Amino acid sequence: MAKRIGKRTVRLEQKIGVIGYGAVVGKKEHEGPLGQEFDAFSDDNRFGEVSYEKAESRLQTLSVDTAVSKAGLEIGDIDCIFAGDLLNQCIGSTFGLRSTERPVVGLYGACSTMTLSLCMAATMLESGAAKTAVAVTSSHFCSAERQYRFPLEYGNQRTPTAQWTTTASGALVLTQGVGSVYIDEYCIGQIVDLGVTDQNNMGAAMAPSAADTLCHYFEDTGTTPEDFDLVFTGDLGQVGTDLLYDLVAEQGYALRCRHSDCGLLMFDREKQDVHAGGSGCGCSAAVLASYVMHRFEDGTFHDVLFCSTGALLSPTSVMQGESIPGVTHLVHLKGKK
Amino acid sequence: MAKRIGKRTVRLEQKIGVIGYGAVVGKKEHEGPLGQEFDAFSDDNRFGEVSYEKAESRLQTLSVDTAVSKAGLEIGDIDCIFAGDLLNQCIGSTFGLRSTERPVVGLYGACSTMTLSLCMAATMLESGAAKTAVAVTSSHFCSAERQYRFPLEYGNQRTPTAQWTTTASGALVLTQGVGSVYIDEYCIGQIVDLGVTDQNNMGAAMAPSAADTLCHYFEDTGTTPEDFDLVFTGDLGQVGTDLLYDLVAEQGYALRCRHSDCGLLMFDREKQDVHAGGSGCGCSAAVLASYVMHRFEDGTFHDVLFCSTGALLSPTSVMQGESIPGVTHLVHLKGKK
Repeated sequence: MAKRIGKRTVRLEQKIGVIGYGAVVGKKEHEGPLGQEFDAFSDDNRFGEVSYEKAESRLQTLSVDTAVSKAGLEIGDIDCIFAGDLLNQCIGSTFGLRSTERPVVGLYGACSTMTLSLCMAATMLESGAAKTAVAVTSSHFCSAERQYRFPLEYGNQRTPTAQWTTTASGALVLTQGVGSVYIDEYCIGQIVDLGVTDQNNMGAAMAPSAADTLCHYFEDTGTTPEDFDLVFTGDLGQVGTDLLYDLVAEQGYALRCRHSDCGLLMFDREKQDVHAGGSGCGCSAAVLASYVMHRFEDGTFHDVLFCSTGALLSPTSVMQGESIPGVTHLVHLKGKK
Repeated sequence: MAKRIGKRTVRLEQKIGVIGYGAVVGKKEHEGPLGQEFDAFSDDNRFGEVSYEKAESRLQTLSVDTAVSKAGLEIGDIDCIFAGDLLNQCIGSTFGLRSTERPVVGLYGACSTMTLSLCMAATMLESGAAKTAVAVTSSHFCSAERQYRFPLEYGNQRTPTAQWTTTASGALVLTQGVGSVYIDEYCIGQIVDLGVTDQNNMGAAMAPSAADTLCHYFEDTGTTPEDFDLVFTGDLGQVGTDLLYDLVAEQGYALRCRHSDCGLLMFDREKQDVHAGGSGCGCSAAVLASYVMHRFEDGTFHDVLFCSTGALLSPTSVMQGESIPGVTHLVHLKGKK
């Protein structure tokens, strides 16, 4: 049985292990600093499909296939798939997973969805309701831009605080008791709203929720950032990362020397014109399902906190003058010592 | 520990009981056949807010408050909230639950979301990761019409197969071991696509997935519809219901005499001009959190299958010529014998 530690943290009794992972990205992501870490990429942003939306679905299909194959399984061996994306009505996941004939749990947490997906998959495995599960998310720059902002053809200018939605999908296969990396604990986040209204500054909208979840976790478990090899955030970018350092410092935690942000890892900000960094719920998913897993396997990492961060807005809510709350979910990943 | 029965069904070991429920609806729903069953309604479709979207969030806040209060709890006693709605980026849930300061799991399964929410809440309770959880969904006719179809002011005509999105929210409070109604088993559905492309015929899009999940359940458990007081579907309406009877009959099950559809219960089709019936993920939620719970309490029901049904489309996917897959999740509810 899982146990609640303190106010928010859940400690799992079973070892919920990662037995397969796959990360598939677009051309720009392949040209970035992590390019060699990913399983596959395409020079064609439509991935051979007729629309960017269908391309995003294709990304999910590919990352799931890769992860399941690396686990030495077939899709029919998977008991449940936990999936989400940024498109309206999570339609990328629907079409990406339509042909699997597996039970699907649709999730939405904006860019926090990958960690939410891991939390829910781990919960189902811990409960005994499944023996194997897949967690997957995706995002696509072109489908996100035209849905949230403007058609690409409009060529609008981006502000310095804007982030670049990552074209990527990452998938993990989880099971009980096996795997070189396992989920030891998790924290489901609350919705945190400090009143940010600038939809071109997602970092500022998400940082307060990242601070909230991290500080709850540190308090619940009596740990500090120094107890971990690294604390990853999803996609705060440079603006959100700087804010996060200030917010956790107010609560007495020094994060700077033990922190890395997937949105900053994904692109070279000097050369790739992504402004404050990468974003999108495929960003943290692809970094987790490649770079982070590889560093566990080569022994660099033993103990990592992984927190995807989400900005809870819709084009309608922004037009109606609503603020942009954030939500951050956390998993504590452990490797072989 | 939960156990997997057959291919899809999960049997829970803990008694995951309902200890509180709340249903809040709009004016038209209050005037329907179930009007007296609901906890609250408003003559004003904006529920005192400035937009239909904010009204939908208000519905969620009200139904959760009612359910938690009936459970004799305060919102701070709830370990986790499982929530979803039909609005882009599940924004109704975000703003409806923003002030709760509780961990929130965002879910998306279109009109199947209430049952998905119950499945995930029950899984978390079974795993020990939470002691109390809330499952809640909402929908609003006016916010859904302008998002999925046309602004209300356009006054477009509706086809005979069209359904009326219910303005409603339903919430259940769940816990371990207590409650007059409990979740005994559940089935997470797969995405089923028989190629329906008419977005004004949701019943036809959803019926194949309802048949798939129900037949999987009957096969896994060796039961037939006669073993239950009633089998509820979410919102197939008249068109989808007739199709469901045919589809399950092909697999040897006679459903007609033991079936009820929340979309048909919600409105009086003769008098209320809703065409094929009600829909929306607040529809099955509100019927469950009122009529179904009341019939368990007065001893009419002892054993019920409850399946919310969802049509997985987005306005973009329809415009891109994609078909409309369905998904159906199921819970088996038991009362005191």
